[in-house]
Amino acid sequence: MTTTYDNDNIFAKILRGEAPCHNLFEDEETFVFLNIMPESKGHSLIIPKFAAADIYEIEESYLVAMARTSKRMAAALRKAFRPDGMFVYQLNGAVAGQTVFHIHMHLVPRYKGVALRSHEEGMEASEVLEEQAEKIRAALKSL
Amino acid sequence: MTTTYDNDNIFAKILRGEAPCHNLFEDEETFVFLNIMPESKGHSLIIPKFAAADIYEIEESYLVAMARTSKRMAAALRKAFRPDGMFVYQLNGAVAGQTVFHIHMHLVPRYKGVALRSHEEGMEASEVLEEQAEKIRAALKSL
Repeated sequence: MTTTYDNDNIFAKILRGEAPCHNLFEDEETFVFLNIMPESKGHSLIIPKFAAADIYEIEESYLVAMARTSKRMAAALRKAFRPDGMFVYQLNGAVAGQTVFHIHMHLVPRYKGVALRSHEEGMEASEVLEEQAEKIRAALKSL
Repeated sequence: MTTTYDNDNIFAKILRGEAPCHNLFEDEETFVFLNIMPESKGHSLIIPKFAAADIYEIEESYLVAMARTSKRMAAALRKAFRPDGMFVYQLNGAVAGQTVFHIHMHLVPRYKGVALRSHEEGMEASEVLEEQAEKIRAALKSL
């Protein structure tokens, strides 16, 4: 599972502002945005502002910052959408399902009776995502 | 997803030494042991020494400690079993699949060509788990 960090991965580009995203939050160490292929309403991705492919490469202080941000974002998502559960996950290595090799944590709100949306359904409409992003940003402000 | 923390949940009992486990590691804030119904070889659970059902209830400092411990345990599991990937997850709410309501983080090593073991396969043999636990403890010492 040794990887060489690729500076041109899509999340690195998002961090540099070279690729668009529906941004939700940022602080010194982390950046959060909506997954454009969401598994559920509000599916968010937390990435560190640190070049690391996975949990082995990331500097501990950045992993800690991701944990802090995950708690804040979980609260915001709960406030915005009132999900019944929250699935938090982080994949390391292609075998585990990782597809972008900049470490990222998924926050997937779960709703009673609603199955996870599959990757094959493709991208969500940009207007839908932006409307969700606005709700989440408002929830963050009112935490 | 509001829960009332139950002091008699199985992980609370493990923390108090009232239930057995194959323990792997502990520090001031966290405790780690093998899942007795592993999804793969080395499936470990990290719990905080703090009474909280989920990511909403846990005090931030304990979530941060869990993140630190996850990095250390991932390195130990990699050293012990040389997996090809690592699936890290944390479930909040029954709808998300949470079954024990003391917050816990799963570390599931992934091996090329090996599917995850299902819950229906039941408990792993205690001797098998203890042998794995010894390997992981040795790996922790040599990190």
